[in-house]
Amino acid sequence: MAVGLTPPPALAPVPGVWLGTATAGIRYSGRPDLALMAFAEGSEVACVFTRNAFRAAPVTIAEAHLGMTRPRFALINAGNANAGNGQRGVRDAMRCCELLAAAAGVAPAAVLPFSTGVIGEPLNLAAFRAGIPAALSALGEDGWLAAAQAMMTTDTVAKGASRRIPCAGGVVTITGIAKGAGMIRPDMATMLAFVATDARVEPTHLAELLAGAVDASFHCISVDGDTSTNDACLLVATGRSGVTVDAGSAESAALSAGLREVCTDLAQAIVRDGEGATKFITIEVRGGIDVAECRRVAFAVAHSPLVKTAFYASDPNWGRILAAVGRAGVEGLALGDVGISLSGVRVVQGGERDGAYTEAAGQAAMARAEITLVIELGRGAAEARIWTTDLSHEYVRINAEYRT
Amino acid sequence: MAVGLTPPPALAPVPGVWLGTATAGIRYSGRPDLALMAFAEGSEVACVFTRNAFRAAPVTIAEAHLGMTRPRFALINAGNANAGNGQRGVRDAMRCCELLAAAAGVAPAAVLPFSTGVIGEPLNLAAFRAGIPAALSALGEDGWLAAAQAMMTTDTVAKGASRRIPCAGGVVTITGIAKGAGMIRPDMATMLAFVATDARVEPTHLAELLAGAVDASFHCISVDGDTSTNDACLLVATGRSGVTVDAGSAESAALSAGLREVCTDLAQAIVRDGEGATKFITIEVRGGIDVAECRRVAFAVAHSPLVKTAFYASDPNWGRILAAVGRAGVEGLALGDVGISLSGVRVVQGGERDGAYTEAAGQAAMARAEITLVIELGRGAAEARIWTTDLSHEYVRINAEYRT
Repeated sequence: MAVGLTPPPALAPVPGVWLGTATAGIRYSGRPDLALMAFAEGSEVACVFTRNAFRAAPVTIAEAHLGMTRPRFALINAGNANAGNGQRGVRDAMRCCELLAAAAGVAPAAVLPFSTGVIGEPLNLAAFRAGIPAALSALGEDGWLAAAQAMMTTDTVAKGASRRIPCAGGVVTITGIAKGAGMIRPDMATMLAFVATDARVEPTHLAELLAGAVDASFHCISVDGDTSTNDACLLVATGRSGVTVDAGSAESAALSAGLREVCTDLAQAIVRDGEGATKFITIEVRGGIDVAECRRVAFAVAHSPLVKTAFYASDPNWGRILAAVGRAGVEGLALGDVGISLSGVRVVQGGERDGAYTEAAGQAAMARAEITLVIELGRGAAEARIWTTDLSHEYVRINAEYRT
Repeated sequence: MAVGLTPPPALAPVPGVWLGTATAGIRYSGRPDLALMAFAEGSEVACVFTRNAFRAAPVTIAEAHLGMTRPRFALINAGNANAGNGQRGVRDAMRCCELLAAAAGVAPAAVLPFSTGVIGEPLNLAAFRAGIPAALSALGEDGWLAAAQAMMTTDTVAKGASRRIPCAGGVVTITGIAKGAGMIRPDMATMLAFVATDARVEPTHLAELLAGAVDASFHCISVDGDTSTNDACLLVATGRSGVTVDAGSAESAALSAGLREVCTDLAQAIVRDGEGATKFITIEVRGGIDVAECRRVAFAVAHSPLVKTAFYASDPNWGRILAAVGRAGVEGLALGDVGISLSGVRVVQGGERDGAYTEAAGQAAMARAEITLVIELGRGAAEARIWTTDLSHEYVRINAEYRT
């Protein structure tokens, strides 16, 4: 029941990146569940990983490998998160890297592993042994959509986005894919995103560009407030466009903007495909003293089960929104300065119901599938915007279903 | 569908406290919805109020009045929270105090108002005008249960508890009543609790006793993580037992323990009657560096919709619990030291599934209506215990129902 989400349009190949998939039988059968991304020699790679202290084995291995050598492959599987498996999980993740390294003729440290799926079950290594050669032989520049499909768990729609950025030295391409969708199914955790560009970018600047894009996109979404053990976002710059993007340049600004767009498309797609979602909600908080407090307010509202069920019910229950704003921990917040509007309908002014507000107007605004909630704090010039979903019967059904 | 909750046994009268109720028609019809508590002259009163920055008008008035004179009355209504009503709400709350003050012959500042119910609708003052004289004429020492019933909104069971504490100078009585149940119904907010003792306690020490009891009880519960705009807990000490309880005395320790018991009974009753609750869950976090981090972990787990739906489904989904522990923001948490058990069944040891654990044993533990989840952090000697509920279809149904 994805909200306003269709399969991605044609995804532009990124010179220097090849993708291949296989039906390895890691947990699912009869569908691709293994994906490889190969990076041209000399490509620079940056990654951000989950902030959860409970990190899956592939996350720890990927981070360690990133510090050792330039990555040549990302090895991605769906169906098993390889989390909560202790030392065995670490050994298994390493073994997968070694299998790919041997088959591809690279060092094991040049392989970054990514896993998504069930927590606490050992990896099926035989499936990797069979799937890796098949995925290697399928590598091609046009494999983006197939890779997006192969890493889906209970995502209902594959997620991808492309941008082409005109620069002084030529056109730079950015393409990314992601999977969500929050933490769907009893234990199907993990958000993964893989983004590539053919710009040439130095590693430090690449990490900055990625951090900025992730901060403006993946860090601005919430389905249920739960951070997964396996979340990761990778950005590779192959340099194959011949365009060098230096920090501080006009190209950097353009690339940065394009990256944010691609990451925002992917992040919004994850929310739209969030478990049980019937509404896609944009929360804008304005007039804060700094961005941090604006985000704190936005997430307090986004995480409130009472607000989320009100969205599900199309109930313009502004008292719940005000109460969530009030408990967000904003020091010295003056209730009398707070304003709220729902998709353009002014609901609260000066901390109380707006004089011109009618329930009919509020209900009409809430009945839409896409809603923008604007909260004004009236204490500064900072603002923040995040995206979230409602809380539906379907969410409870999906997450209460016993693991199958 | 309260979990293991029956109406309170006989509530002991507290000399110096009289209660009366009336069917005022504030919002409900045909049931008591107004309650008065009268305190003997010379009684000391302490209160704690919601930490929400969005505070209802009666909360602001009650706090102001507390600083002005010794309270003689608490005026409590159900059905309307008088929150989000701006200056009109403040005037209306004051007017209610004045009505009672005039009828009872006390100063308006000697009246503390408490409201629970719908947010954003003006108070029906005519109902107060009619109800206050009726409630005054009903005042009696045996009115505790009737008052607990009069302040129910969608609570399904009235909540009360009593203790009698033998002291050197005589027996001291403690009786308390509360209403919850989280934030039930689309906008029925508010937890209220009123506790009385006939001990003689100096104001400063009374405030300390209340703070300690609330910290160990009402601050250790969560139904949905939402803090209401009207939460309040009042403690009155009438001194009518003739027993003086000084700070640091053996009597103080006994009174403090009794108060904690009464408040814990009330707090647990609120959770047991939480909206849609099918499980009553005790979360104990042990081995933390301090109590604050133990509580942070406990509430991260208690607030996780994924963990809550797993409890609802009786699914021993320990990966979700570990993931919630991991995102609780405990600096330097070593996953390899974390242990988890469910009602005595060891599930996780050293950050991974315990070797002897079986799904059958986990499912049997989760199938109970009352579950104790123990989380060991393995980094210190501090511990904390909180109480919460599961997240059921009924929760979504209750909270998505349009306001009626």
